Amino acid sequence: MTDTPNGAQALIRTLVDSGVDVCFTNPGTSEMHFVAALDTVPEMRGILGLFEGVVTGAADGYARMAGKPAATLLHLGPGLGNGLANLHNARRGRTPIVNIVGDHATYHKQYDAPLESDIDSIAAGAPGWFRRSKSADEVAGDAADAVAAALSSPGGIATLVLPADTCWLPAPDGAAPPVAPTAPAPVATEAIERVAALLRSDARCGLFVGGRALTAEGTRAAARVAAASGATLVSETFPARQRRGAGIPGVDRLIYLAEFAQMQLAGIEHLILVDAVEPVSFFAYPDKPSTIAPDGCEIITLVDGRHDAQAALDALVDALGAADVAGLEPGRPARPSGPLDVGSFADAIAATLPDDAVVVDESNTSGLGLQAATAGCPPHDWLCLTGGSIGIGLPLATGAAVGAPGRKVLAVESDGSGMYTFQALWTMAHEALDVAVVIANNGRYSVLDMELDRVGAEAGGPKARAMFDLTGPDIDFVSLAQGLGVPGERVETADALADALDRAYATEGPYLIDAVLPPMAF
Amino acid sequence: MTDTPNGAQALIRTLVDSGVDVCFTNPGTSEMHFVAALDTVPEMRGILGLFEGVVTGAADGYARMAGKPAATLLHLGPGLGNGLANLHNARRGRTPIVNIVGDHATYHKQYDAPLESDIDSIAAGAPGWFRRSKSADEVAGDAADAVAAALSSPGGIATLVLPADTCWLPAPDGAAPPVAPTAPAPVATEAIERVAALLRSDARCGLFVGGRALTAEGTRAAARVAAASGATLVSETFPARQRRGAGIPGVDRLIYLAEFAQMQLAGIEHLILVDAVEPVSFFAYPDKPSTIAPDGCEIITLVDGRHDAQAALDALVDALGAADVAGLEPGRPARPSGPLDVGSFADAIAATLPDDAVVVDESNTSGLGLQAATAGCPPHDWLCLTGGSIGIGLPLATGAAVGAPGRKVLAVESDGSGMYTFQALWTMAHEALDVAVVIANNGRYSVLDMELDRVGAEAGGPKARAMFDLTGPDIDFVSLAQGLGVPGERVETADALADALDRAYATEGPYLIDAVLPPMAF
Repeated sequence: MTDTPNGAQALIRTLVDSGVDVCFTNPGTSEMHFVAALDTVPEMRGILGLFEGVVTGAADGYARMAGKPAATLLHLGPGLGNGLANLHNARRGRTPIVNIVGDHATYHKQYDAPLESDIDSIAAGAPGWFRRSKSADEVAGDAADAVAAALSSPGGIATLVLPADTCWLPAPDGAAPPVAPTAPAPVATEAIERVAALLRSDARCGLFVGGRALTAEGTRAAARVAAASGATLVSETFPARQRRGAGIPGVDRLIYLAEFAQMQLAGIEHLILVDAVEPVSFFAYPDKPSTIAPDGCEIITLVDGRHDAQAALDALVDALGAADVAGLEPGRPARPSGPLDVGSFADAIAATLPDDAVVVDESNTSGLGLQAATAGCPPHDWLCLTGGSIGIGLPLATGAAVGAPGRKVLAVESDGSGMYTFQALWTMAHEALDVAVVIANNGRYSVLDMELDRVGAEAGGPKARAMFDLTGPDIDFVSLAQGLGVPGERVETADALADALDRAYATEGPYLIDAVLPPMAF
Repeated sequence: MTDTPNGAQALIRTLVDSGVDVCFTNPGTSEMHFVAALDTVPEMRGILGLFEGVVTGAADGYARMAGKPAATLLHLGPGLGNGLANLHNARRGRTPIVNIVGDHATYHKQYDAPLESDIDSIAAGAPGWFRRSKSADEVAGDAADAVAAALSSPGGIATLVLPADTCWLPAPDGAAPPVAPTAPAPVATEAIERVAALLRSDARCGLFVGGRALTAEGTRAAARVAAASGATLVSETFPARQRRGAGIPGVDRLIYLAEFAQMQLAGIEHLILVDAVEPVSFFAYPDKPSTIAPDGCEIITLVDGRHDAQAALDALVDALGAADVAGLEPGRPARPSGPLDVGSFADAIAATLPDDAVVVDESNTSGLGLQAATAGCPPHDWLCLTGGSIGIGLPLATGAAVGAPGRKVLAVESDGSGMYTFQALWTMAHEALDVAVVIANNGRYSVLDMELDRVGAEAGGPKARAMFDLTGPDIDFVSLAQGLGVPGERVETADALADALDRAYATEGPYLIDAVLPPMAF
């Protein structure tokens, strides 16, 4: 950039200088100057997704593994809208993402051209830091502020809207100075002491851990605190990233169904939140409560997203003089054989899981056996659907593979959720990402069979159940994968699944396994 | 419904009584009572889409053909977000749609459960009538108001948010009285006379027609006015629904590229808008103007969405004493042979188009020859991408086939756009819809090659062009279709395309043709 850079060039240089050097994108005309500027900043890697839900989900997966944000580049309001569901999930997981949303040139907006829409309102669907650049001069500074916001504690979604002329006009000052992450704040000593006193008392305490506390070290510290105090240790239902496996203490997850979750927390008088929010029922149901903790239970936020979770847990360990605890023994199920069901499905996955794998889990009802089966597997990272909006798994696995090069990624995906953003497979193939995709293909939105019963819906009959039916035609995921350049195979037994998984892990690049399962019976 | 209905039952009964008897849906837990209520109202047809962009695009296509709105049923903010891009397109086409968006129960919202989001803001991305039901008692009345809003002149998007408890609690009053469409208002006589006087004068006038004026009758009346007065007759670039073909006068469309569109309108002193808005450039470009009409040209809105376009055009015919005009002669290209290019692609489609077909056109650059080639085909309806947000074609064709039973639907789809919402093929197969899908597969976002040049983007090199590249792997649309239960074939010559189209039209249910084209050279 010996010549005066334009706004787009200054923007990308600023991002790269601050460590944001991957951009997942599906651009359009209003983003052409950004795209052109990719050639002037060699350090920025552009990765194309064939739908914006892939783009935003991949940015989430990347950041969860790389520990720093990616950028997205989205085309006006509709592009942001298409990416919104996975931004919602990222926000719930507190993943840092820097969204760049192109817009019409400042002077063109008044004409209400066909693609004009209310970008600012759409962005409120996944709220966080938000700004609209006013001029090319300000773009680099705006980008630095966006990165700083994404990297703050708690970080999250930062969305910068760039009218096209702010990208194409000159930005003589060039890039903004690099920004660094904000360090999380320590938890106040008084708060630690108060919680330590409760843990030492006879009161029944619960530790509810999530977020950044679910590293190996965080989990060990939490387990030590629980063992020393007798507190009940439970993790979030759907952690953004959890380190688990042999050698790491086990942590029960809070069960999705509120009535069972209530049993897990029964009798607890003080629930201590460690980088997690108060547990509530995912949905409301007639005659079922919205909250999970017992009536009268005190909710204590010890650590929230602004705080250093590890330091707080270490301080509790010290305060309690908590002895070390054993991690889980290594061990996994034998390779299963016979029919595929929820149990043998989990066993096949656990029996074959590679060392240091990254597991992306959007398996929904079909994955109910996975947690138990994989508990003693070699240590691995487990990434969940954090915000309840289906369609995250395949994009998340795509981004995780970019963010964790050299590691094997396993995406355990349900059929209905997988259909939402199946386009991700093309990016996996295009970027030669080592992702083994297992589709739990039971031909239904099986969770809705359960939910229809649970909401007590009157008169749900064949027309209602037909809305959950993914058969007629059956979906052939091997053909779908082949259409996007991904090899694969269909399996109908547990031994075939285990064998196919071995092949998938031995394959360079993505590989898909269409595992035919019976629908869950509720 | 002898028992007291619940809110959901009263809602669906109200919709059906007002003629809204098709609901495209992808529901979730918060919509289970609506789904259950489908079994209590037999007249309501539920049609499942495997992604919300399919649901909203299908509702658009349905209404364009059926002439009345469908309902959609969407799952909270993320479901609405997933459907937003095609709602944006529907809004730009002024299609009536009644969106039902489920939400958490009123008392549950305070807990910020994982799927909680700002639905109201997201809905502002495709603005129109909006309401949030407050209680089960009010749901039926709210639904009636939503239908009335969608059916008013101009109609459009009506979005009703239903907290789950407003669906499951009793609604003792049951359904609301049926609502009927609002008749469009007549254009004031003075406005007709003023425009007639201009048309009779020596001033150079242009008639810019769109919306509901593009029926066979409206087109004929507009052509008579133009012929009698010497006015230039041009239609919208991307009509929502245009009747065209042999026997109907031809109308040039305003060209997408602003510099060519300006040539079409050069010298015009008074541009008369007939159910169309003032033409503007789709995007801004450095050193190119935003508006299309010549400087100083008077823009006269004779007919907007509230008005009866046909009556206004008939009044102009009478005022001018305009003689009848000939329609286009029947005629179509010979069946082509040899390599596939933009010309032979169009010829193959024109040579085989069935009588009274419905053509859904999201062919982008590959379809540049279609308008000319099909001008003398048997009369047919042509449906365009109205709002510029790609991913409408396959959903639109799905809904059009539901809304126009017995007619053959042809979807001409580009590869990049088709990948956005390819899930629609499953619904085509599931509902046995007679849709011939032709994918113009040139392996690129070819329009962006052109736009990168047009924006004058500096230094766009290989990294930029790689963002438009849909190869490595090549997308195999036949495999994709097969994965969703749709038969098909790949063609690489013009004669093979024509033969394949014959097979597609002879096939009951959907059929896909993957037509391999060279990228456009710009």
